[in-house]
Amino acid sequence: MQELKPERILFIVLDGLGDHACKELDGLTPLEKAYSNNVKKLKENGSQGLMDIISPGIPPSSDVSHLIMFGYDVENEYFGRGPIEALGEGVELKEGEIAFRGNLATVRFENNYPIVVDRRAGRITSEQTKELVEYLNSEIECPEGCKVVFKPLSEHRFVMIVSGEGLSHEVTDNDPHAEGKPILLCQPIDEAKDRKGAERLAKIVNEITIQAIDKLSKHELNKKRAESKLPQANSILVRSAGTMRKMKSFQEKWDLKAACVAAGLLYRGVAKAVGMDVYDVEGANGLLNTNIQGKTSKALELLKSYDFVYLHFKGTDVASHSKNPIAKCEFIRRFYESLNLIDDAVLNTVTIVITGDHTTPCDRGMHTGEPVPILIASKGLRNDATKFFSEREAVSGGLGRIRGKDIMPILLDSIERTVEYGTRPSPKKINYMPKSLEYLKLSI
Amino acid sequence: MQELKPERILFIVLDGLGDHACKELDGLTPLEKAYSNNVKKLKENGSQGLMDIISPGIPPSSDVSHLIMFGYDVENEYFGRGPIEALGEGVELKEGEIAFRGNLATVRFENNYPIVVDRRAGRITSEQTKELVEYLNSEIECPEGCKVVFKPLSEHRFVMIVSGEGLSHEVTDNDPHAEGKPILLCQPIDEAKDRKGAERLAKIVNEITIQAIDKLSKHELNKKRAESKLPQANSILVRSAGTMRKMKSFQEKWDLKAACVAAGLLYRGVAKAVGMDVYDVEGANGLLNTNIQGKTSKALELLKSYDFVYLHFKGTDVASHSKNPIAKCEFIRRFYESLNLIDDAVLNTVTIVITGDHTTPCDRGMHTGEPVPILIASKGLRNDATKFFSEREAVSGGLGRIRGKDIMPILLDSIERTVEYGTRPSPKKINYMPKSLEYLKLSI
Repeated sequence: MQELKPERILFIVLDGLGDHACKELDGLTPLEKAYSNNVKKLKENGSQGLMDIISPGIPPSSDVSHLIMFGYDVENEYFGRGPIEALGEGVELKEGEIAFRGNLATVRFENNYPIVVDRRAGRITSEQTKELVEYLNSEIECPEGCKVVFKPLSEHRFVMIVSGEGLSHEVTDNDPHAEGKPILLCQPIDEAKDRKGAERLAKIVNEITIQAIDKLSKHELNKKRAESKLPQANSILVRSAGTMRKMKSFQEKWDLKAACVAAGLLYRGVAKAVGMDVYDVEGANGLLNTNIQGKTSKALELLKSYDFVYLHFKGTDVASHSKNPIAKCEFIRRFYESLNLIDDAVLNTVTIVITGDHTTPCDRGMHTGEPVPILIASKGLRNDATKFFSEREAVSGGLGRIRGKDIMPILLDSIERTVEYGTRPSPKKINYMPKSLEYLKLSI
Repeated sequence: MQELKPERILFIVLDGLGDHACKELDGLTPLEKAYSNNVKKLKENGSQGLMDIISPGIPPSSDVSHLIMFGYDVENEYFGRGPIEALGEGVELKEGEIAFRGNLATVRFENNYPIVVDRRAGRITSEQTKELVEYLNSEIECPEGCKVVFKPLSEHRFVMIVSGEGLSHEVTDNDPHAEGKPILLCQPIDEAKDRKGAERLAKIVNEITIQAIDKLSKHELNKKRAESKLPQANSILVRSAGTMRKMKSFQEKWDLKAACVAAGLLYRGVAKAVGMDVYDVEGANGLLNTNIQGKTSKALELLKSYDFVYLHFKGTDVASHSKNPIAKCEFIRRFYESLNLIDDAVLNTVTIVITGDHTTPCDRGMHTGEPVPILIASKGLRNDATKFFSEREAVSGGLGRIRGKDIMPILLDSIERTVEYGTRPSPKKINYMPKSLEYLKLSI
């Protein structure tokens, strides 16, 4: 009997995959309507199912979802979104530093309360943001003997990094996430484990915000913007505090050399956080008109030197949030076209996964708790009898209904790196072989 | 794209739903045989599946089942059935009081052992029970400095309430639950956490039982009953000890204003325990000949002022216990008839659930550990490709096989109150928004 041993894994995430039946698509879902021969060859070599990343009815945020699918225990190994986004932006962080995402914003004052007028300060240019952020770095005195550094990003965006002893990132945003609302007081979250540390950080954030409003209001550039009738960048909004902690790398965890092809900064950040090498592709932009063919091609090329390639497309989620099932279907169709690059040699040696990180149905335009469809094509696994890859066919698929944490064991199993229960690194470690071999010697 | 946002939930429990194929029904289950166009319109707008309230093979008691489906953690939030039933009967209980369900019973004596002859004392009238129970209240001296109060209910039934310091409800019944058997010694359960408190309560129950037998045997009314050849009400049997603890209300837990339409006392008790408003319907009796149309109509009316309406029917379970699949099928058929009250306006704005609290197959006439079928019709959720609502079609349903604790997240998701992981009330609470908003104020 012919033996086929897949040795590598191509892990494709179509962000926000999974939808409802759409009138615009003749009662089909975008995934169903887009079905073509290019994916049929994968379906014929695989099994599909439905996956609850966490549990039925509960959608995860994208960062948490990816970490769970990559086999991480987010309860104990994840420390907040701020550093993930900063890493995605290419900001270097040191162990223990606390990172916030930040915006330069426009506020007006009402009884001494700063009210947010424009959360992005009229999408101020990157150059001006750089100038203002460097000014903040030179002017702001961080209280409590701690240190604050601002790093400019594109347009109105920056990262705020606070470091010092006895701080906890368990604090709320000062960003009200809406215009017309006052800036919020940063506070410890209700569930803070290190309340004292969180109180200390909250106090620092509030003092920095007050200083920043004072300093920015006086800056020459804002005076000029006011003269040109442009919204002043006279405040900072910060959000998503998290502590930089070195995570166990994907390679250490699974003994797989891993690469990432993604344009979206959050996804690049997750990949960097787990030590994947992140690659760029010309024309890849995390939008609907991204270079799909180029990305798939790059991923396949990387499979020559990596065991695990994570390929991420954001377009499906973008279309879903704009409630456009036709655009979503068209994006999937173009993605399927790029699967023409997958030939028999690839099918025979690579386990290929297509799934989503959460469901974003076009009629609701938001992340929902419904399970995502997942297709695993692998010569190493049993294939099922379903005909199409689709949310509704997946119900009867060979994978059944799995959880996000089940993926890595299934994929490792498909490439003969099966994690047996009773041995490394299962929860119940019973390894009957000693690590360093020594031999029994009789005394006679 | 058309937006449909269900905003309310109708949660229908057909008690003991789920059955086996029955010869009497041409090899169909009662649910399959009863299928009609009235439920077809729900099926077409929804997904079905199978649900293990706890886990495969383990049937829950009805009170526990409902609490789990309502999203309660019974391990930590539930304190025994006695108070639930007492609440259902309309008995008021104070925090910390221990309630038992009780029967007046007939015993004979054999070597000083009271042997149960009739567990219901010939279904003695409510009036006579009231007289005897008030007599017990005046005569019995509760030992250990504690207090005991008996409250009469219908026929032979009463509630026994014990209160005092250092008591634990972790005790066994004195009720042997069979005739011809001696009254049991009340004892701490093996798993009692507060053994000392349980020993103390057991001692009290045993002493009260001895006193009650003594006092009741001497009562004039029993002498008259003996003369009329009626079974004497010369003993008490108590069971299902539980401590009254205020539970977090359903509204506090889920921010949904909730009402209940149920006739069965246990179900009304569960609803009251979680703070639902409980409504009566004329002709509703918890039996096969209940006013089904009236109950469904009432539930739909309540949906105008409540976010969540729990509608319970007992008839299915009654038929199952009497091993009568034809009556069960007929009851479901009549329930389906009442669904003609559901029009498109309801379908568009209400998430409708039909399920059971446990499986009671007619051929076994008892609760079994088989999963219950569940149908969720909602414009907010993906629908599946199955044709009929049935135990066997549910295997291929879009909900897959879920647990009781999954229901509330799925229902909340369907009405856009999605519980995202990373926010309340997921295991990892990172809620970047403060619960009580406070605002940054400048000192200038």
